[in-house]
Order: sequence, then C-alpha cells, then structure tokens
Amino acid sequence: MKVIVDLCVVPIGVGVSVGQYVAQCQKVLQEMGLKYQLHAYGTNIEGDWDDVFTAVKRCHERVHEMGAPRITTSIKVGTRTDREQSMQEKIDSVNGLLSTGSDLE
Amino acid sequence: MKVIVDLCVVPIGVGVSVGQYVAQCQKVLQEMGLKYQLHAYGTNIEGDWDDVFTAVKRCHERVHEMGAPRITTSIKVGTRTDREQSMQEKIDSVNGLLSTGSDLE
Amino acid sequence: MKVIVDLCVVPIGVGVSVGQYVAQCQKVLQEMGLKYQLHAYGTNIEGDWDDVFTAVKRCHERVHEMGAPRITTSIKVGTRTDREQSMQEKIDSVNGLLSTGSDLE
Amino acid sequence: MKVIVDLCVVPIGVGVSVGQYVAQCQKVLQEMGLKYQLHAYGTNIEGDWDDVFTAVKRCHERVHEMGAPRITTSIKVGTRTDREQSMQEKIDSVNGLLSTGSDLE
Repeated sequence: MKVIVDLCVVPIGVGVSVGQYVAQCQKVLQEMGLKYQLHAYGTNIEGDWDDVFTAVKRCHERVHEMGAPRITTSIKVGTRTDREQSMQEKIDSVNGLLSTGSDLE
Repeated sequence: MKVIVDLCVVPIGVGVSVGQYVAQCQKVLQEMGLKYQLHAYGTNIEGDWDDVFTAVKRCHERVHEMGAPRITTSIKVGTRTDREQSMQEKIDSVNGLLSTGSDLE
Repeated sequence: MKVIVDLCVVPIGVGVSVGQYVAQCQKVLQEMGLKYQLHAYGTNIEGDWDDVFTAVKRCHERVHEMGAPRITTSIKVGTRTDREQSMQEKIDSVNGLLSTGSDLE
Repeated sequence: MKVIVDLCVVPIGVGVSVGQYVAQCQKVLQEMGLKYQLHAYGTNIEGDWDDVFTAVKRCHERVHEMGAPRITTSIKVGTRTDREQSMQEKIDSVNGLLSTGSDLE
C-alpha cells in the first residue's frame, strides 16, 4: 500500500532548539531511500506503507538516542485505492486549478 | 517501545456519515487486543509500537475494503524513555493538578 | 458557526512534565464556560467558533505567561452544515453501531 | 502574537477530488495578504494570530458555501516568545545543520 505522510517530530525536555533532532530525522529518511520534502512545519514523505512507518519508528529511536526523554509526533497519513498520486501531483493539481481559475470563481 | 497514540481515520468519498468506518476501526483494535478509548474526535490507543501501527495499517485496509476510495488519517504518537505512563495516568495527572489547584494559581 | 475541536497544547523548553500547563488550559476552558472533555492525548471542546478559538488563543497566552518560551499545538476542527451534532452524539453514534453490529459484519 | 500555522482542510461528502476546495482556501489566504506556502499535505501560513485564524474561519465558510456539508481540518500552531522566527528560517535552520553535518554525527 502506497502512502503519503506528513511527519512532525517534536522532542520534549531538550530545550527550545529542536532543529538538530529534525535534521537527524531527515537523515533517517535519506538513509532509507525515501522520497521526502521538508517544509516549515514538518516533512512530506512518499513511499510504501511499511517503509514509511519503519522510518517513523527509526526517527523516534534516533531522537531518543540523542537524549530526548519524551517525543510527541504528529502524522497525517493519506492512502487511496482509486488511483496513484504523488506528492508533486497533489501540489500541481491545486496550482493548476489556481492558474486556470475556471473552477474558482 | 511503548507508545500512546491518538488515531482519527477519515474516509473520503463515501458521504458525510463515517460512523460505520470508525466502528470498524474500533473492531480492529479490539481484535488485536489493544487498550483503547474512543472520544469525540478520535481514539486513544496504548500498546507496543509495532502492535499499534499494525492496527493502524489494518484500519486503513479495512476501511478501503468497505469501499472508501481515499482515507486521510491524523495520528499523534507519544513515546518516552524517562518512565512508563499509561493513558489513564496522563488523565489522572492533569485532574490531580486541577483538584489540588496548588500549582495552578 | 458551531464547531467541535480537539486541542493538544505542547509547551516546549520547560522540561518533560507538562501536566500543569495542560491543567491551566482546562481552567481557561472552564472560565470561558465551554463544554470540554479531557482525554489521554488532548481535549475535546464544543461551542461557537469564535468562543472556541478565543479560548485556544488564551491557552497559548496563559502557557507563555507560565514561562514556556515555545508552544506547538495540534488542533482538529470539525464543522457541518447538514445537521447539529454534539460531542456525545458522535461517541454514541459509533457505540450504537458497535452494539447492534448489524452494519459491521 | 505572531504565529506559524500548518493548515489542512478536508471537505467531507463531496467525493474524492478535493483540489478545488484547497485551491479556494489558497485564494482566501491570498485575499487576506498572508504569507503562505502550499505543500503536499497542507499549507504553511505565517502572520498575526488573529489574521491567521480569521483566514482559517473564512476557509471553512468558503468550503461550506461551495457545497461541502462537512469539513474536518487539522491545524498545527506554533508560537514563541524567545525570538521571532519565519517559516523560511525554520527550513534554513534544519538545512544548515544538514549541510555542515557537524552536529549530526
């Protein structure tokens, strides 16, 4: 099952600067060969369900290993059986509607 | 790794009434022997990481099998290495602070 | 516009114990006379859109006043125009389907 | 109070194609003069708390006006009192850590 995920890992109990933990999670995704895109409030990930959720678990393990005693993570998970759709196609679809504007007025 | 999860599965493309899909997800959790508690905007689940995420995957599979062509799910995931904490202890902790009130003024 | 919200306020940079901040948010909801229900990973709130979001803002203000330099909050927001539905009705609807089981097999 | 928000509006009961509703929400943000960035699973928004949440409410109103009888929205909300931080700075901070790599090994 193909999945598009939005992942936001928040380490708790390590102060206000959490960038290095987020960076390590990016490395986990890279090591696993997943397609991903960082944004200002999380990371979009695209891949097979099991691979993506293995990566999410590794992120938690890695962030705990780095010293964070507590983590709270938000995940959005999208699956569909009607057709394949990539992360880029989702963005293009909205932008396409905006540029033609035909359905928007 | 022990995890507390909040799960909210939203089937898309099946009309406005989604209760029967949510009910089936409750059944998945029950079948897997997980501890869970339904609330008005999701379900709290407590258990081992792998068991809980296997259940989440089965929920997606089940809801697709029921005919939903698209699903978007929100998950919150909490892990901690400093100590064990159950769902009930989280609630009791906040309610305890509220009833004594000593830290609240 | 009537809204059902699920609110989870996470103070960052104040250590691992966040119960007292959550308790203060419960007090904000109580002070504003909103209907709410704490669960293990957030709080369900029911009310008018403007009242509920005024409460959410006050929670952020209160938690910052308590000393948290950074907050990340997750909110789920449900609105519907087809009919009124309370938090309790959402729960009863799923439990009703589970007890009759007629739609579940 | 300055806020960075991640917004994901999901219309329910209008079929599987929700792109046109998302596009209208982009228009709302544009009309209000907010800084925003679409990604594959939501939209990052940056601005004053009241402006951003006025926009979120207008998105719900607009999507209902377009015919969606039910909406479920996920919002992440970040505020901080220790310093100002823009959406781009959050991304640059993580990418900077990744390129130097000094903190990552």
